[in-house]
Amino acid sequence: MGLNTRIEACIAQSVALGQGRGSVPPKLASALGYATAPGGARIRPTILMSVAMACGDDRPMISDAAAAALELIHCASLVHDDLPCFDDADLRRGKPSVHKAYSEPLAVLTGDSLIVLAFEILARQSSHAPDRVAQLIMTLAQRTGMPGGICAGQGWESETEIDLSAYHQAKTGALFIAATQMGAVAAGQEAEPWFELGARIGEAFQVADDLRDALYDAETLGKPAGQDDLHGRPNAVAQLGVQGAISRLRDILGGAIASIPSCAGEAQLAEMVRMYAERLTPVAPTVAAATTPTRHV
Amino acid sequence: MGLNTRIEACIAQSVALGQGRGSVPPKLASALGYATAPGGARIRPTILMSVAMACGDDRPMISDAAAAALELIHCASLVHDDLPCFDDADLRRGKPSVHKAYSEPLAVLTGDSLIVLAFEILARQSSHAPDRVAQLIMTLAQRTGMPGGICAGQGWESETEIDLSAYHQAKTGALFIAATQMGAVAAGQEAEPWFELGARIGEAFQVADDLRDALYDAETLGKPAGQDDLHGRPNAVAQLGVQGAISRLRDILGGAIASIPSCAGEAQLAEMVRMYAERLTPVAPTVAAATTPTRHV
Repeated sequence: MGLNTRIEACIAQSVALGQGRGSVPPKLASALGYATAPGGARIRPTILMSVAMACGDDRPMISDAAAAALELIHCASLVHDDLPCFDDADLRRGKPSVHKAYSEPLAVLTGDSLIVLAFEILARQSSHAPDRVAQLIMTLAQRTGMPGGICAGQGWESETEIDLSAYHQAKTGALFIAATQMGAVAAGQEAEPWFELGARIGEAFQVADDLRDALYDAETLGKPAGQDDLHGRPNAVAQLGVQGAISRLRDILGGAIASIPSCAGEAQLAEMVRMYAERLTPVAPTVAAATTPTRHV
Repeated sequence: MGLNTRIEACIAQSVALGQGRGSVPPKLASALGYATAPGGARIRPTILMSVAMACGDDRPMISDAAAAALELIHCASLVHDDLPCFDDADLRRGKPSVHKAYSEPLAVLTGDSLIVLAFEILARQSSHAPDRVAQLIMTLAQRTGMPGGICAGQGWESETEIDLSAYHQAKTGALFIAATQMGAVAAGQEAEPWFELGARIGEAFQVADDLRDALYDAETLGKPAGQDDLHGRPNAVAQLGVQGAISRLRDILGGAIASIPSCAGEAQLAEMVRMYAERLTPVAPTVAAATTPTRHV
């Protein structure tokens, strides 16, 4: 089974668990599926699985649960971020956002249910390796909630004085740090040495996202463009210009490769980061429109 | 230490963990405290602790984490339920609801962060008793999310055809079932025999809540009154009348006492249910206004 197939299978299985059988509220059950498939590039679970495989992947069911849990949290964050009180986004991944397709109450509940489901599917694997599962739950919680997870990242956007470094690490970096650390933990390794790789990939995605937000139109993005400018959010392109931001992106990805801890699959992991570097570096928008497919991260 | 003090201490300690130190978004950190204290009667953690103590409470730190986690989930549900897209409630526990006191984005994030924190504080206790902690996380998740938890309960309110039994069990019963089952599991007992006690207490609270919603004004309730009528939600008073609903409440509580599994603290638990029965049974509203303090559940 290829990596993509494996990831889609474990996400689908987890969502089916949340959708249940018999007497369940049908719209909410349907919204769980809508919010999670078809997915974007599944980058976070792909990084998680790549790290787990580089570390031996000796408990594949634990890696599967970790990858699915992480993607469910990411999907939940997209559903809540799109709500009228945040980005008020009508589109996500090229289709109506959950609150547009269903309703605002169902979008709030979809996000809540996906967060809960993420922790449930991890806990269900506990009998196979209780220490790893507890560590996975703690890592995912710390990178999702307060004080240092993506909720904290969003929370900074309600402040007039922002700690930019804390903001970026929490808002975009957190789930990439979770990806590398959870991949290592799922395969029985220590989390700490994998922090830097996750943090640097997160930084790279932030800069790439800033570039895309500034350069691409809504059709290419599959979501509204120019949102950072509109919401007055900090943006690497505003700080460094387009060429400066592209140079910065390359530097960060070089640092990411250099930070990979010594492990059996080190060379393959470096290759994966190089591949993302290729895909992340935007080309000029006119060329992009003609040659590249729509990418959703 | 009295039970109330113990419960308040473990909730405060958990919230402090979520609030963190150093560079955290201050408004969101403050909102976590605002949403969780001063609390209502802390009924769910009190039931959980009472069951744990009736079962021997041999791992008090696990019971503490379980009680705090359950109350955090309850508080999160109140914050999200009060949002404009649900009940649009300006008041909660006699003070402005979180979205009124802070903002709607911060209220969404407060609920999300409290849900995540609940699972994190449980996972942190894993090294002391991994099997119990995994079971606690699964039980809490099942009673919180989809397909059978309070999210599912809320989800039914977006349907035109409602399965009333599934709706009530998920909407109000779920966290009481979590309370009795998590209390037993925290003390090393099986969850299953404790289902019925939780389900019946949940039913009793639903009927009592329906009575209060129909009989009391907003000042006494500390939140808007007449909400069931307004939102066309099913209500025991509408079905049975006031006296019929009071009789039903007494029957349910009698059944609850009869359902208590055999354990060392059985008699004390029965006493606790009787005490709640006293407190739950509403008196006529004019008498209530003169003689009883405001109660928040």
